Amino acid sequence: MFLLLFLCTFTALAQAQTLTSPDKNFVMKFELTAKGEPTYQLTYKKKPVLKQSKLGLATQDVPSFLEGFTITDTKQATVNNTWEPILGEQKTIRNHYNELLVTLAQPDQKGRHIRVRFRLFNDGLGFRYEFPEQPELSYFIIEEEHTEFNMTGDHKIFWIRGDYDTNEYAYTTSQISDIPALIDKATHDVHAQFPIDTLSVQTPSMMKTADGLYINIHEAALIDYPAMHLNVDPKNFKFSSHLTPDAVGNKGYIQTEAHTPWRTIVVSDKATDILESRLILNLNEPTKYEDVSWIKPVKYIGVWWEYFVAGKSTWAYGTETNVKLSDDFTKLTPNNRHGANTENVKSRIDFAAKHGFDAVLVEGWNIGWEDWFGNWKENVFDFVTPYPDFDAKELQQYAADKGVKIMMHHETSGAATNYERRLHEAFQFMQDHGYNSVKTGYVGKIIPRGEHHDGQWMVNHYIYVAETAAKYKIMVNSHEAVRPTGINRTYPNWIAQESARGTEFESMGGLAPDHTTILPFTRLMGGPMDYTPGIFQTDLSYYGTGSNQRVNTTLVKQLAYYVTMYSPLQMAADLPENYERFPDAFQFIKDVALDWDDTWVQEAEPGDYVTIARKAKGKNEWYIGGVTDENSRTATIRFDYLPKGKEYMATIYADGKDASWDKNPQKYEIRKVRVNAKSVLKQYLAPGGGVAVSVKEAGKQDLKGLKKL
Amino acid sequence: MFLLLFLCTFTALAQAQTLTSPDKNFVMKFELTAKGEPTYQLTYKKKPVLKQSKLGLATQDVPSFLEGFTITDTKQATVNNTWEPILGEQKTIRNHYNELLVTLAQPDQKGRHIRVRFRLFNDGLGFRYEFPEQPELSYFIIEEEHTEFNMTGDHKIFWIRGDYDTNEYAYTTSQISDIPALIDKATHDVHAQFPIDTLSVQTPSMMKTADGLYINIHEAALIDYPAMHLNVDPKNFKFSSHLTPDAVGNKGYIQTEAHTPWRTIVVSDKATDILESRLILNLNEPTKYEDVSWIKPVKYIGVWWEYFVAGKSTWAYGTETNVKLSDDFTKLTPNNRHGANTENVKSRIDFAAKHGFDAVLVEGWNIGWEDWFGNWKENVFDFVTPYPDFDAKELQQYAADKGVKIMMHHETSGAATNYERRLHEAFQFMQDHGYNSVKTGYVGKIIPRGEHHDGQWMVNHYIYVAETAAKYKIMVNSHEAVRPTGINRTYPNWIAQESARGTEFESMGGLAPDHTTILPFTRLMGGPMDYTPGIFQTDLSYYGTGSNQRVNTTLVKQLAYYVTMYSPLQMAADLPENYERFPDAFQFIKDVALDWDDTWVQEAEPGDYVTIARKAKGKNEWYIGGVTDENSRTATIRFDYLPKGKEYMATIYADGKDASWDKNPQKYEIRKVRVNAKSVLKQYLAPGGGVAVSVKEAGKQDLKGLKKL
Repeated sequence: MFLLLFLCTFTALAQAQTLTSPDKNFVMKFELTAKGEPTYQLTYKKKPVLKQSKLGLATQDVPSFLEGFTITDTKQATVNNTWEPILGEQKTIRNHYNELLVTLAQPDQKGRHIRVRFRLFNDGLGFRYEFPEQPELSYFIIEEEHTEFNMTGDHKIFWIRGDYDTNEYAYTTSQISDIPALIDKATHDVHAQFPIDTLSVQTPSMMKTADGLYINIHEAALIDYPAMHLNVDPKNFKFSSHLTPDAVGNKGYIQTEAHTPWRTIVVSDKATDILESRLILNLNEPTKYEDVSWIKPVKYIGVWWEYFVAGKSTWAYGTETNVKLSDDFTKLTPNNRHGANTENVKSRIDFAAKHGFDAVLVEGWNIGWEDWFGNWKENVFDFVTPYPDFDAKELQQYAADKGVKIMMHHETSGAATNYERRLHEAFQFMQDHGYNSVKTGYVGKIIPRGEHHDGQWMVNHYIYVAETAAKYKIMVNSHEAVRPTGINRTYPNWIAQESARGTEFESMGGLAPDHTTILPFTRLMGGPMDYTPGIFQTDLSYYGTGSNQRVNTTLVKQLAYYVTMYSPLQMAADLPENYERFPDAFQFIKDVALDWDDTWVQEAEPGDYVTIARKAKGKNEWYIGGVTDENSRTATIRFDYLPKGKEYMATIYADGKDASWDKNPQKYEIRKVRVNAKSVLKQYLAPGGGVAVSVKEAGKQDLKGLKKL
Repeated sequence: MFLLLFLCTFTALAQAQTLTSPDKNFVMKFELTAKGEPTYQLTYKKKPVLKQSKLGLATQDVPSFLEGFTITDTKQATVNNTWEPILGEQKTIRNHYNELLVTLAQPDQKGRHIRVRFRLFNDGLGFRYEFPEQPELSYFIIEEEHTEFNMTGDHKIFWIRGDYDTNEYAYTTSQISDIPALIDKATHDVHAQFPIDTLSVQTPSMMKTADGLYINIHEAALIDYPAMHLNVDPKNFKFSSHLTPDAVGNKGYIQTEAHTPWRTIVVSDKATDILESRLILNLNEPTKYEDVSWIKPVKYIGVWWEYFVAGKSTWAYGTETNVKLSDDFTKLTPNNRHGANTENVKSRIDFAAKHGFDAVLVEGWNIGWEDWFGNWKENVFDFVTPYPDFDAKELQQYAADKGVKIMMHHETSGAATNYERRLHEAFQFMQDHGYNSVKTGYVGKIIPRGEHHDGQWMVNHYIYVAETAAKYKIMVNSHEAVRPTGINRTYPNWIAQESARGTEFESMGGLAPDHTTILPFTRLMGGPMDYTPGIFQTDLSYYGTGSNQRVNTTLVKQLAYYVTMYSPLQMAADLPENYERFPDAFQFIKDVALDWDDTWVQEAEPGDYVTIARKAKGKNEWYIGGVTDENSRTATIRFDYLPKGKEYMATIYADGKDASWDKNPQKYEIRKVRVNAKSVLKQYLAPGGGVAVSVKEAGKQDLKGLKKL
């Protein structure tokens, strides 16, 4: 596509370079300071986005890459092509950028050189450090990466606290300068957390400037490197990279030829552009898998939500509180509330088959749950031994007869070494029993002890699991792993992740009504989320267990999530009986696609609302979802993406007039109308509510009976 | 055998208990202090060996096990039986002890209780802590074990510095009180060392009292627990346990039911008794392997010593100094000195076949050696990809045709996680290619980073490797692993270990002439050592590489090692051409047995000399080895273990009259004589020299021609 040649001379070139985006809206200026420190700055439509910001890395064992640089070579290039994701929000993704590759040498270090590669797209900037193989540089250890993001003012920011072990915090919306005052309150209790002791926030980090610019900072292609958090300088509105350390405090082991992940800054004056950005995916490598035919969307139900709400079933089988894998689990005292028993799973399989779901997730099927959490214990699970009341062979046959897959569950309790040791046997068990997808979990402090969920070793672990799973044609849905950075492009069987505060927290204090208007701008910028939506019974006191918890949405908002919270793997998380109580609303979950030809973000404002329309892949079907925060609003939904001159049947799932997330969440109205490309729907969304629309082809006769929108 | 019942009442029992050894020589007294601290003391033939010494553990998460105890139950029992090791120094081992099991409760901790189990043999004491499963105690983390060994005076001690990562120090002989002055000098440069920053020494720790008592402190059955070092109080002559921490400073994760390894104190007024002690093996569990028929002694040569001395060959294949497993190694620039090439290995196989060796060790056969060391790098080796000039298939056939095995080499460079990840594939490769033994190596800082060679995680790793190897019927010879504690009884395919300063150091500064008179009293107390003896060409300047190094022994002392340094796996480490120069001396190496019906330690003094006679297993052959330090001496070798009334042919390999380790190491004399049970050989050993004797049945005719000894 383009050929880059590097001249490793020490001729001083112009010490400043500019790069322009294809549409000319962005200009990036790279410049060395008088001390030879690399810097960059970014403007969008002539407005400054990032003031001059330093680049560099402090190292151990070798002199640092911070200053004393001269530019010894620069190369510019343009790429404009398209590619097709295996599964995605669009069938075809355009990859259009101008590139500047700067070679920086340190004359005082025998001309040792690094490179910085900038790619400027129409939706923002990506850049990374590259460490060429050279006699002067084979191995080094990173003490800290010192990449700055120097903001122009005290922007509004949607943030969660920097933490090496969890992404499961609730979001705080504030000005940058307010972070210090709010940081303690923002540090919620989460299992196995390790809040960074200096002031920091996580990425993807979403900001909005006073003059209406939207700025998102994250990273792309996080491989063999620790995850990046952002130090916060609340006075100067400056962020700087804060890498996740390993057990001995080091922040990355590098062997040249190597490079860092991309640091990404997605920018627009329209919030919808942020959600439509494919910059992060574009900066990831295409997959090397040869056969991807087995990677398919998964719509699933599970033996799961009942553990949180119904109060009658448990992951564990026994009443004992001290068990070992070497124990004879048939000798345990059954607690008689074990959820993953053969009969219960069969009834879920029946339900899945009846309603066209691909799979049934079964948690708690394997021995070890009696004391799985909190002991920093290595051999909690073996991933191959079912509880006495879970008949793997019988269920294999039963599921196969019904055309349904069982989804495997591998909770590691954070013991990654134990999981790796047993991984082949675990995947072989899956293959032998007809499972083609696994939900992995990392609840707990990591083993290797001292490592963190977000460290380089664990980053490599998750990828090792995904690559190994691919050998067995298994799809992976990871929970509590490091947040995604678009590497589902490279490892498309790593089909979805949790890595954020998901639906489970609705049963533990609840999620703020604006939570899911923020997630698309933060967590989902990195990749698909297994948010596990679809809760119809939002008032959990319903179960009579004494719980006063509630899911803080209307029923319809739960439907909208299947469109607004992109994932090719989606759960219908509620209990079957709740779906049977609302079969007309349930129809939307049954219908909705998981893989898309195209996507149009219609309206969006982080913290307030999101409305998205998508076309099902390979089908003339469209699905639209809209959500709002605690405020009611009227969504404006266009249909201009429909083929012109043709009429379609739209089914509109709307909040009832007096519905609200807290008082009347199950009030909804479903109506069918005719729509065409010129139609516009003005739809009321209740406080904490949403809207869901399906658009399908229909026979003339059917259309005739419908009102025009 | 005996049944123990525990009465968990809080009735205060007598707060002191005594236990006597079967032969009454030892008396152990267990006692609680006024504060309820457990203590023990030990006498031998009425002489104090250990003054009152405290027992206990400091813990995290739960209250410590240090004080506030009452004795709630005691049980005594006697065991007297025998067992047969798979391979060993004796066909039958007697296991005879009196046991005291003390249950200790802490009334202030809801009666939470632990147990201390003492076993008093005729050769010393073993005891361990036991943590019963109970509602009050499921999980805890050890902060430190506080077991004291309170010596009666300023004994002479043969010691190496406490270090979490290496046992490869040279020994220092001093009084206990001199340790502080000598500790820095005793801290030699060793790869990946982590000297403990407080004053400490390693076990097995060998001492001699002023009145001639020999005392050895070590541990037995180190499983799922960190290795123990000894803190030194040089003023009070008190040692206390110092466990190896993990990456976060913790010293052991315990889930009840559990117990610590045994702490062992072997004592006698005869040094020979120390070497004849089987106490440590007796305290290990019998193997659970059902089929052990494939576990056999291994006498081997190798492509190995040439890397240290001959200067012409290397582990690495390429000249490059920065390689990755993903590189195409056929594209490297050959350094033309790669030792593990097909032709070289074939010639070793020829030699092995000609001289009756079981196996040929080949190091450097697999890709990755160009920059394997020092970078704390994870994916250094894959254990399955040969260098371009090593034809695994061709060599498999060649070795099979000659009836010789190739010994696999798995250098992990300390990256245990990488090894575990690839372990099954690596062993499968071995099985597919006809290998039945592997030398493993752990040269380098451990990954998981922050863990140590001697920590609990790594202790479990080595056992995991041994157990997994057993599934493939593979024998393991580990180098740089934690030092052994007799667990070759439980895992008999973990056939030998290095875990001390071995022959390789003769090429890097040399070993002191007394080194191998100390090792049997220290390192070898724990189990067989792959010392790699058999160096005939001791002056390394011989190779013309500019080296002025020398192996600090006579040639004959190298022969003696095959008897004095017990191992069922023994190398003849020197180059084939050196054996061909001294075929008569080489005959002893070819003849000597590796597995024994019985062993008689004839003379021994740590730091001075060791003389051992052994009977080959299942054969009427006896082999005797004797070594001395830098001083010449006359060994007295008895033959009273020979069947009475019968004559045998003894071949005596003796230092020449003017031989010495430093001036004339290759001067030796071989003579054959007639011996019987009444014979006594008074044999001169040169400075740094030795003696080796083989005794065989011979025809009357042959015997007639021999002089009587």
